[in-house]
Amino acid sequence: MLNFTVGPVQSSDNVLALGSEQVPYFRTPEFSQTMFENERYMLEFANAEENSRAVFITGSGTASMEAAVMNFFTDKDKVLIIDGGSFGHRFVELCQIHKIPFTRIIPSFGYGVTEEQLAFFDNKGYTGFLVNLDETSLGVLYDINIISEFCRKNNIFLVVDSISSFLCDPFDMKKNKIQVMITGSQKALACPPGVSIIIMNPEAVKRVMQNKVRSMYFDLKTALKDGERGQTPFTPAVSILRQINVRLKDIAASGGVDVEIQKRKEIATDFRCKIKPFPFEFVSHSMSNAVTPLHPKSVFAYDIFTVLKNEYNIWVCPNGGKLKNEIFRVGHIGALSTDDNDILINAFKDLLQRKLI
Amino acid sequence: MLNFTVGPVQSSDNVLALGSEQVPYFRTPEFSQTMFENERYMLEFANAEENSRAVFITGSGTASMEAAVMNFFTDKDKVLIIDGGSFGHRFVELCQIHKIPFTRIIPSFGYGVTEEQLAFFDNKGYTGFLVNLDETSLGVLYDINIISEFCRKNNIFLVVDSISSFLCDPFDMKKNKIQVMITGSQKALACPPGVSIIIMNPEAVKRVMQNKVRSMYFDLKTALKDGERGQTPFTPAVSILRQINVRLKDIAASGGVDVEIQKRKEIATDFRCKIKPFPFEFVSHSMSNAVTPLHPKSVFAYDIFTVLKNEYNIWVCPNGGKLKNEIFRVGHIGALSTDDNDILINAFKDLLQRKLI
Repeated sequence: MLNFTVGPVQSSDNVLALGSEQVPYFRTPEFSQTMFENERYMLEFANAEENSRAVFITGSGTASMEAAVMNFFTDKDKVLIIDGGSFGHRFVELCQIHKIPFTRIIPSFGYGVTEEQLAFFDNKGYTGFLVNLDETSLGVLYDINIISEFCRKNNIFLVVDSISSFLCDPFDMKKNKIQVMITGSQKALACPPGVSIIIMNPEAVKRVMQNKVRSMYFDLKTALKDGERGQTPFTPAVSILRQINVRLKDIAASGGVDVEIQKRKEIATDFRCKIKPFPFEFVSHSMSNAVTPLHPKSVFAYDIFTVLKNEYNIWVCPNGGKLKNEIFRVGHIGALSTDDNDILINAFKDLLQRKLI
Repeated sequence: MLNFTVGPVQSSDNVLALGSEQVPYFRTPEFSQTMFENERYMLEFANAEENSRAVFITGSGTASMEAAVMNFFTDKDKVLIIDGGSFGHRFVELCQIHKIPFTRIIPSFGYGVTEEQLAFFDNKGYTGFLVNLDETSLGVLYDINIISEFCRKNNIFLVVDSISSFLCDPFDMKKNKIQVMITGSQKALACPPGVSIIIMNPEAVKRVMQNKVRSMYFDLKTALKDGERGQTPFTPAVSILRQINVRLKDIAASGGVDVEIQKRKEIATDFRCKIKPFPFEFVSHSMSNAVTPLHPKSVFAYDIFTVLKNEYNIWVCPNGGKLKNEIFRVGHIGALSTDDNDILINAFKDLLQRKLI
């Protein structure tokens, strides 16, 4: 199968090879070393400021989203959430569950947020901001410069879920004064799913230490503390953490995060150019390099997913819920090349001939 | 390295081979089929009664312990906890965090609980019971017959964390009227860590549905609901779930759970016989087939762990905290044979000659 979903995605040969090794015992100096390296690379690739920290949570991306809401905010906060799709909406639900006061910003369908939209919330006592930088469900990349400028001006604590944007689009915690970033193992890190990662700048670390969280698993205090010795409070997904290590080292050896982002950009641009003649509409007016969402003009989107899977051995990424028949997505993350794009384009040509699109 | 820890443990060749395959996209009927099979086998191997359910949580064993405390009990309950080691004590901390009223039962060091000890709590209004059936930190296996008889008599809801005992010692949810069982991927299931599993009988399912949980990730209602179509609420650790599938099928093909338990028993018995001449004391007076905890009479336990790791390429399992220098453990779970026991025994012989034990 050729995998164009947005996760799990295709892993490199190096990452796969490690998957068939026995999983080592982990309460050892050797595994601590792996974890120290993982933390160091993650901080480097996010350009986190000095004394920032990264913790690795064994869990889905949602686990880290929930941990973030619980550890960085309290009922004394007043949080803005960009509610532009199913992942942004998850932050809304998490704030409801944990009784964090919030206001939703709902962008126009397929569009990002503007300075004017945010200016409306200037000087209104907001203390926090939650955003899925690339709203993966619709492939809308919000403008981090606009958001971070607004937060800086209003002294707002900014939590960026960069799960599908990290390593795909330029991202700079230091330059943009981002307090917290979240990502996951199965997006552009291109490892199996099961680990999510939270990067905290020193202000965020301080907030964790001062906050009392009603959870053992999601209490980041213990994760930070055990991380000082390269360990985790509970048995982690050791195999995935070792694969992340290989992947991070490969990125570093290939020229670092900028080269990686450039690769993603080339594959995305190549695909967007080649797909133009087909009867699809671009859904997003602000695309990440991670994914291209498409609306088929005359057939059901989910049928395209099914026929590509069953007859062409290709996975594109279906949408769920109300958009199931409206949108499918083509991911550009993982071990993919422009040659792989050609295979998908040829499949679309065939579907066109068969009058299936 | 030869791995005698209690997790992660050695996987079979079949399980390892799958680790190097690309991770498939999972919102598909094909992956749902895998999950249906996983649930069916888990229910079969635990001998769960009809209409029981199993859910798969992407997280450490502690994630499922916390989910259990949150979903099955409220502040109206009154829970008994066997606090016989670091894992039993984790249930104490979880009940403190989630404000579940509880009473601790503290067994004598290295011993299980007796009928007399439990009889003291008869007719005192207890509504729940939490036990780590094999207190893995000390290798003490509690008597499930005594516990379940006490619970049945007092109409108490019984949650058994069987994380290191499942597939090692006889276990029967139906016979013993156990409402909930918890286990993890990296113990006798012998897959990489990252997935924990909660089996619920119909009474437990009903309790989940009636209870309101202040968490998104740990709300078992959505896990149960999505599980009806073989899916999970959040991106799961797909690779590990597929490996669990291979392992469960292998167990079924090799004769089922009784044969698997018999294998564990043979390896444990073989080791316990061969280790007798050495200057170690058995710590536990009620051992699981999963692990043999040993107290070295004249040297530090952690030094034995270190020298075996660095000079013999063997991992035994160290203890943490206060027992670090007192106890090390030899696991019998995972892909091990009596020949592997001989390799470890020969290493001990060598240590004896070198006067290191």
